Amino acid sequence: MFFASDNWAGAHPAINDRLSRESTRFAAAYGNSELDKTVEARFNEIFERDVSVFFVSTGTAANSLSLASMARTGGVVFAHSEAHVIEDECGAPDFFSGMRMVPVEGAGGKIDPEKLSSRIAGYPQDSLHHGRAAALTLTQATETGTVYSLDEIDALTAIARKKGLPVHMDGARFANALVALGCSPAEMTWKRGVDVLSFGGTKNGCWCAEAIVFFNQDLARDFAFIRKRSAQLFSKTRFISAQFEAYLEGDRWLDLARHANTMADRLRAGIRTQNSSRLAWETTSNEVFAVLSKAAATSAENKGAKFYGWPVPLNQPDLVGSDETLVRLVTSFATTEEDIDQFLAICKAG
Amino acid sequence: MFFASDNWAGAHPAINDRLSRESTRFAAAYGNSELDKTVEARFNEIFERDVSVFFVSTGTAANSLSLASMARTGGVVFAHSEAHVIEDECGAPDFFSGMRMVPVEGAGGKIDPEKLSSRIAGYPQDSLHHGRAAALTLTQATETGTVYSLDEIDALTAIARKKGLPVHMDGARFANALVALGCSPAEMTWKRGVDVLSFGGTKNGCWCAEAIVFFNQDLARDFAFIRKRSAQLFSKTRFISAQFEAYLEGDRWLDLARHANTMADRLRAGIRTQNSSRLAWETTSNEVFAVLSKAAATSAENKGAKFYGWPVPLNQPDLVGSDETLVRLVTSFATTEEDIDQFLAICKAG
Amino acid sequence: MFFASDNWAGAHPAINDRLSRESTRFAAAYGNSELDKTVEARFNEIFERDVSVFFVSTGTAANSLSLASMARTGGVVFAHSEAHVIEDECGAPDFFSGMRMVPVEGAGGKIDPEKLSSRIAGYPQDSLHHGRAAALTLTQATETGTVYSLDEIDALTAIARKKGLPVHMDGARFANALVALGCSPAEMTWKRGVDVLSFGGTKNGCWCAEAIVFFNQDLARDFAFIRKRSAQLFSKTRFISAQFEAYLEGDRWLDLARHANTMADRLRAGIRTQNSSRLAWETTSNEVFAVLSKAAATSAENKGAKFYGWPVPLNQPDLVGSDETLVRLVTSFATTEEDIDQFLAICKAG
Amino acid sequence: MFFASDNWAGAHPAINDRLSRESTRFAAAYGNSELDKTVEARFNEIFERDVSVFFVSTGTAANSLSLASMARTGGVVFAHSEAHVIEDECGAPDFFSGMRMVPVEGAGGKIDPEKLSSRIAGYPQDSLHHGRAAALTLTQATETGTVYSLDEIDALTAIARKKGLPVHMDGARFANALVALGCSPAEMTWKRGVDVLSFGGTKNGCWCAEAIVFFNQDLARDFAFIRKRSAQLFSKTRFISAQFEAYLEGDRWLDLARHANTMADRLRAGIRTQNSSRLAWETTSNEVFAVLSKAAATSAENKGAKFYGWPVPLNQPDLVGSDETLVRLVTSFATTEEDIDQFLAICKAG
Repeated sequence: MFFASDNWAGAHPAINDRLSRESTRFAAAYGNSELDKTVEARFNEIFERDVSVFFVSTGTAANSLSLASMARTGGVVFAHSEAHVIEDECGAPDFFSGMRMVPVEGAGGKIDPEKLSSRIAGYPQDSLHHGRAAALTLTQATETGTVYSLDEIDALTAIARKKGLPVHMDGARFANALVALGCSPAEMTWKRGVDVLSFGGTKNGCWCAEAIVFFNQDLARDFAFIRKRSAQLFSKTRFISAQFEAYLEGDRWLDLARHANTMADRLRAGIRTQNSSRLAWETTSNEVFAVLSKAAATSAENKGAKFYGWPVPLNQPDLVGSDETLVRLVTSFATTEEDIDQFLAICKAG
Repeated sequence: MFFASDNWAGAHPAINDRLSRESTRFAAAYGNSELDKTVEARFNEIFERDVSVFFVSTGTAANSLSLASMARTGGVVFAHSEAHVIEDECGAPDFFSGMRMVPVEGAGGKIDPEKLSSRIAGYPQDSLHHGRAAALTLTQATETGTVYSLDEIDALTAIARKKGLPVHMDGARFANALVALGCSPAEMTWKRGVDVLSFGGTKNGCWCAEAIVFFNQDLARDFAFIRKRSAQLFSKTRFISAQFEAYLEGDRWLDLARHANTMADRLRAGIRTQNSSRLAWETTSNEVFAVLSKAAATSAENKGAKFYGWPVPLNQPDLVGSDETLVRLVTSFATTEEDIDQFLAICKAG
Repeated sequence: MFFASDNWAGAHPAINDRLSRESTRFAAAYGNSELDKTVEARFNEIFERDVSVFFVSTGTAANSLSLASMARTGGVVFAHSEAHVIEDECGAPDFFSGMRMVPVEGAGGKIDPEKLSSRIAGYPQDSLHHGRAAALTLTQATETGTVYSLDEIDALTAIARKKGLPVHMDGARFANALVALGCSPAEMTWKRGVDVLSFGGTKNGCWCAEAIVFFNQDLARDFAFIRKRSAQLFSKTRFISAQFEAYLEGDRWLDLARHANTMADRLRAGIRTQNSSRLAWETTSNEVFAVLSKAAATSAENKGAKFYGWPVPLNQPDLVGSDETLVRLVTSFATTEEDIDQFLAICKAG
Repeated sequence: MFFASDNWAGAHPAINDRLSRESTRFAAAYGNSELDKTVEARFNEIFERDVSVFFVSTGTAANSLSLASMARTGGVVFAHSEAHVIEDECGAPDFFSGMRMVPVEGAGGKIDPEKLSSRIAGYPQDSLHHGRAAALTLTQATETGTVYSLDEIDALTAIARKKGLPVHMDGARFANALVALGCSPAEMTWKRGVDVLSFGGTKNGCWCAEAIVFFNQDLARDFAFIRKRSAQLFSKTRFISAQFEAYLEGDRWLDLARHANTMADRLRAGIRTQNSSRLAWETTSNEVFAVLSKAAATSAENKGAKFYGWPVPLNQPDLVGSDETLVRLVTSFATTEEDIDQFLAICKAG
């Protein structure tokens, strides 16, 4: 019953096998092997167009270096107020990009288009003292388990485009969002106006595989230098490539995400039928936010369930009663039906 | 015949096995698992004292963040003029530490103590305009295949200590140096006055395992933040820990390095006996620098040997004749006697 | 009728005379002249204790470098949401300090103590992912013309002290606040727990004189290097010293601020008696925020009055009627009664 | 007898008068006054073409921000090994530009073209690990009192241009060089291939007036933001403009420099005729490097002369005898014939 985060899971057997195979041979370092080229080409197929792909070590690196590729002196980046770049990366995006992160509110973890427009209006291009708008970053799936619809993405990228701002998508849970929407990678990204994507594999079955995908190749021009100067160029890059090869083989990456989402669906469905717990809000990806009785939560923890509490939203102070607690439950490719059912049984009893 | 670099090798089977085992289970992220704690404790044993250990993704990160832990505004770092931090890291050490790298000359890839003293004297602690001395970094084994003796390390750290400068050691090939000297890890580091160590595993049998080891724990105080802000905190850190567990099990890491050095010895011995090639200079680690006839080099490449040319030292222009070429040959845990013998045969014939 | 900003004024004759006198002689550069030492000592008198003083070129530099002296990796700085460091400095505080500015709300341009506590609580010292609290900065007088009482400063610095955070005060209009409160410089700063002060002279009669005053001299230890590395060490520093000497002679600096505040009082009093205009909110320093009829504003501009509009506060959308406009009117040492009376007459007619 | 530096001089009376006049009036802040526009236009005349001009507070700022305008990730800047950006700015150029300064040797304080070519060749544009060539900076007049001829500048800029590198000129003593060569400002800069100029006024009669002049206006595009973010935008910018107006009025700036150079000529001529002292090397600007007997040097100091010792060049250890000392003597607009003659008399006696 590991629901603390999808990064508590291990690595998928097929990915592990591919890594094992890779371990026995020699090949060129720093991304210059045949395998590296093959996997980069595979990204072109996945996204149905030529892209530039760069592997980095962490999701924080993927986001921070993506924004660094858009750096403008005195520039500000618009992000949802609960975005990872604002809440969870220790200032790395500011450090690497040299820009300030400006939070934009919005219900359900999604940037509100009107609020975005209004925020951007405060940072015109000649705004020497206040700073100037420089980029927009979206998180798909969001930090609160929701997923932007294609129309919602369109609405935000249209605002950015009108102001000349490049758009980054934080896809730490890209596959989970894709499966939730049932669309193609291209449809969810560059066809919607996304310029640069943090494409995460770590949370969905790799042990360490994060890619930055440039649809707007102008932004990639100096990126090899940005990555190297940021200490993110692996010598044995091909071990990242090997993971991605297995990850992207057939529809494995989608299958893994589909499994995680299905497990979350099972969890959501179970919670909906219970009296002793309820969903804090609706989600569609592999994250579930539930209000549990404190008794149930304690009981689950005593029986070995792992999960984290989640801050009660400021604007919904009544969401949680005095004998209740708000928790985040994350499923992954490795979650089993038994895990879910056992957890639900505990909650029901609790 | 892969002699291009030790980072062209794969991963050792025992390390790969340990990774495979790790892939099947769940565990806490961001370095908080039991395994992470166990492996950190193992470093205490290895170094015979309490140390603080932080894993990062690349050797460049290990060096750059080590120096960042010593950062002083207006500070300069003294390094050998051929050091990796000067020659091969795209300015990352400057970027992360905010300090300037000041090259110090010295024969055989080793900093000359007198030149170090003289250089440091140019940057006194009140030197507001010129900058002030802030750190010393040594590379062991050096970039040119040599190894500092314990006395040589002592001589340099004594100079630094007298000036109040902390000392970093770039140990990308730490194990190779250790085996070459036949001393203990403690003897080669903190007993010699080293404060912080880049402890490399990647070149010696891991696929990605670099650690920063703090003997001077004052310097480690803020380091968790430095690492996270630098985008170097892996979520699935335990996969690094797993590699290090297998790497450090028994004397495996030393055995692997010993093998690499022995292969280099075999290569050195073979070259010494040939007329058509010769050693450019003496080395004792797993790097061999040889002057080959251009015919032999071409022949070797045609038969699949991989290696890189090396710039002729400015102060030894006559080292290489007009029909000759200077090459670097690096052995690794995965190099075989057959590789060596085949290469030697080609050179002999060439 | 120059009410656009106090930085539209020139320099006071006594300060100009002192500069003229300074121009005719030779003296040591980079702050090493006798005059520099004398003026630094004068700051000790002003603040009734030993302080460390550093001159810089702009208010943005004073604030940014003050915060740089408090820099902690992954640290965040708490500032009022309308503070200059957030609204008007193009990200310079982030750039020089490497920290993120976190806005805290509060009525009347003043940080609300409860909101500050709540904000700080979100950034505990071990908060690796979210970032850690590192500093508090207050603006006195505030950007909206109000002045913190001594008790109000106490309340905020007590919160900071309890959390171990150093406190910076942005005193771009320090003298205006001091005169408004009628207390001593010591009482408004270090006796209240302020560690570092941006002491502004430019807006109050100098042409360019900004000082950073360290009450907490631990924070000053590396500051000479921070200033030089930030390109803020004037070669002819003594021309800043000369300005400060004349500025601080007798009570000149307080007299100049008192004049500016008195002119603002006259403006406030006049506006209060009019039907066609009103104060947007009460202020006590040399800034007045008024709601004028658009006709009066236009008429004033046509007659040569200079002033800027001010954004209507989000939480007071009804402050301004459809035929009205919100403006900021700033007085200075150089404002005359005639300017005020002429402006008031226009408004009355308008 | 103030020969320590030209920045020990005060301000020229005409410049001081202009400042005084400026002090009595109001005008728009942040470079938006009429005067600011007028003076900017004057630079167009001086340089016989449209230029973009930005004022900053110090020579270090001028150089550092100029290089920041040329910033490329992983880029390196080539400078003479004795250049101010390398020797005297506490790492500010590295800090603001994010680039590494790479020293290039050359006799007489001038970059040797062959050595420059060779250095640049080590940093090709695809040199991911070593770094890539990004800019060239020249100092005119040099730090050792010499002046590049127009042909010498041509030779260096041609090398840079062939490699696509922009060229910066550090003109802290621009006027002294110009007068020494007897050419026009245009001939010494953009007609020679210079893209950006640090145009210094402080050392030649202003108290604080440094300008960055962009001939290549592409590099100026983001510069307003670079300056503001670097805390270098004065609110009362017009006081810089006022200094420059008086400085550039008629040929005043050239007259002042001519005077300084003439005083240096007088000093050089006097030293040449003496037995007890000699010129260390020939110079043509307002800096004189002399070998004095220690007795003469002490005698001069005792009689109030101010000057600094200068390090004996490493490659000329025999330049200075055991009872001799090498000193730098700098003249300025304020140096008098009497100062020179008195000093020469002391040396002769010494």
